[in-house]
Amino acid sequence: MKTKPVLGLTMGDPAGIGPEIGLRALFDPSVDRLCTPVLFGDAGILRRLESAFPPKPTGSAHGNGLSAGPGDGRPFCRVVSLADFKSVPAITEPLIVDCGAIDAAKVVPGRVSADCGHAGYVYIEQAIAAALAGKIAGVVTAPIHKESLNLSGVKFPGHTEIFTALTGAHRSCMLLYSDKLTVSMATTHIGYHEVPQKLSVARVLNVIELTAETMGWMLRREPRIGVCGLNPHAGEHGLFGRREEENFVEPAVAQARAKGIDATGPLVPDAAFTVNVREKFDALVTLYHDQGHIPFKMLAFDTGVNITLGLPIIRTSVDHGTAFDIAWQGKADPTSLFSAIRVAADLAGGKLRGVAL
Amino acid sequence: MKTKPVLGLTMGDPAGIGPEIGLRALFDPSVDRLCTPVLFGDAGILRRLESAFPPKPTGSAHGNGLSAGPGDGRPFCRVVSLADFKSVPAITEPLIVDCGAIDAAKVVPGRVSADCGHAGYVYIEQAIAAALAGKIAGVVTAPIHKESLNLSGVKFPGHTEIFTALTGAHRSCMLLYSDKLTVSMATTHIGYHEVPQKLSVARVLNVIELTAETMGWMLRREPRIGVCGLNPHAGEHGLFGRREEENFVEPAVAQARAKGIDATGPLVPDAAFTVNVREKFDALVTLYHDQGHIPFKMLAFDTGVNITLGLPIIRTSVDHGTAFDIAWQGKADPTSLFSAIRVAADLAGGKLRGVAL
Repeated sequence: MKTKPVLGLTMGDPAGIGPEIGLRALFDPSVDRLCTPVLFGDAGILRRLESAFPPKPTGSAHGNGLSAGPGDGRPFCRVVSLADFKSVPAITEPLIVDCGAIDAAKVVPGRVSADCGHAGYVYIEQAIAAALAGKIAGVVTAPIHKESLNLSGVKFPGHTEIFTALTGAHRSCMLLYSDKLTVSMATTHIGYHEVPQKLSVARVLNVIELTAETMGWMLRREPRIGVCGLNPHAGEHGLFGRREEENFVEPAVAQARAKGIDATGPLVPDAAFTVNVREKFDALVTLYHDQGHIPFKMLAFDTGVNITLGLPIIRTSVDHGTAFDIAWQGKADPTSLFSAIRVAADLAGGKLRGVAL
Repeated sequence: MKTKPVLGLTMGDPAGIGPEIGLRALFDPSVDRLCTPVLFGDAGILRRLESAFPPKPTGSAHGNGLSAGPGDGRPFCRVVSLADFKSVPAITEPLIVDCGAIDAAKVVPGRVSADCGHAGYVYIEQAIAAALAGKIAGVVTAPIHKESLNLSGVKFPGHTEIFTALTGAHRSCMLLYSDKLTVSMATTHIGYHEVPQKLSVARVLNVIELTAETMGWMLRREPRIGVCGLNPHAGEHGLFGRREEENFVEPAVAQARAKGIDATGPLVPDAAFTVNVREKFDALVTLYHDQGHIPFKMLAFDTGVNITLGLPIIRTSVDHGTAFDIAWQGKADPTSLFSAIRVAADLAGGKLRGVAL
């Protein structure tokens, strides 16, 4: 029998669509085939949601709800407190870890709040601790709301930065993966104006290396990596910009090639994403958030997976936000979460087989 | 009989694909149906090209080559010097205006050179002068090479800036038009780092107004204009960036709406170009070159038309570069030039009917 990895799922911001898609993952047969899910959240919120939108029967071996099942009086999904979770010896069936981070009755769906920001952070913190302790093979995150997070006093701008800090990673980056386009980013959640000063040969080289390493594992062959320039037309040999292409991208590409990585660049940004150019590469390294996110979301909206590279643990994420406008209405599409679970299970499988991440 | 507009075409950089696609336009029946073309270039270059790649018979009423036609000894296309062009009373058939800007024998296809940069500039200058004098209804430009232009001592970074300066326009902007996506830009050919300091409420408002005006004419109804933010997630209410969204985009959108324009924004940039969002708008105003060019080239590569808005004359352009790698090999695709001619003819038709540009 093939061993399924145990994957932690975070519930995300309680006021967003994270709780409902997390609940669906717990009882979905396709998820069940890939992994044993452990949802870090608040049981009170999941019960409130479930009473509003009872899950439909799905044929999962583990039942389809949190409340008592018909006949035997047992709830379908086991709920454990954080303290009890620490003493669970082995995880063999879906589990909810009740973090007790927020009073479920006070959650207003779709509203920014410091309490929800705090709770979303606690779920991440606990899932990371469980992964570092080896209790789970990786973490798949549902969306948090950056304003709520900020209001709660957490100063990290997003998941990538939280995972990097809490796992003590010395370098990391965001990669967006899909069948149509894969992009990684040298900078992410910072202001437009801050990007040039964050670029360095070391940073671009790190991102090329991390991207090549993960794509090599995903593809089981040497990946072809393209690296975008920063300025219009990649600076056109110094006509636009401050020669960021010559100063940072060219040396990083040269050093990556010297290390045996099939890297090419700087690419002209507005040409790199046209079908003829992008198909020459397995992944494109971009220099700022929207350089990668604009084309990625055009091609892979709702199907993309966000992977944090360079961590000592596996971490994938949905590619969408909290969708406050449709939260708690039973309308949220779990496709992106299921994709993120599939990629995390792939990566965990590779890790189990001893393939370097 | 419907009056066809007389449109000036510039030959572009002599070392690029401009001469060959310009030559094809002169003898193409679809172009002939739309306008009477006047090509500003160097006859020596066109003859060199023609001897290498004789145009195929196309059924054009005006013949299909520069050399003498069979039977009557007359060349198919009339060539006039700049001086003679000024005294041509009315233009009723295709014409080549021989600007004498470069020695044809010295042109090396695919090579950057100051001489070619200079020649490309002279063709533009002469076409603009003819348009301002009312001899032609508008100008359609073939690609120039920015490095060659720069080497020749011309300090304008591109066509848009040349047209703005030489026509004395007090405001202008670039718009990329296609059936799939239309984007205009508040900034274009400047370094990445210079963008924030170039933004102002007045600039964003100007671009919204120019975009709404032209799209209103193209669509014959009130257009819906979306306006992108600058930072990741449009700044997420000040979390990223220097509140460029609140400082420049929001007030510009409010002022545009007060003037009766259906403007919306700031839009989250990486959401704006997904199919569900972009289809809510007839055009998207973007704040920097690649914010507009990356999605546009993904959707409309080789079919897009570049229009300069805000000029006293009509100006459209191909959406591609000089393609030095395939120049003078007879491989260049004239589709984008023909699209640019079609849009210029549409705009000229509107102008003739008294519709404000």
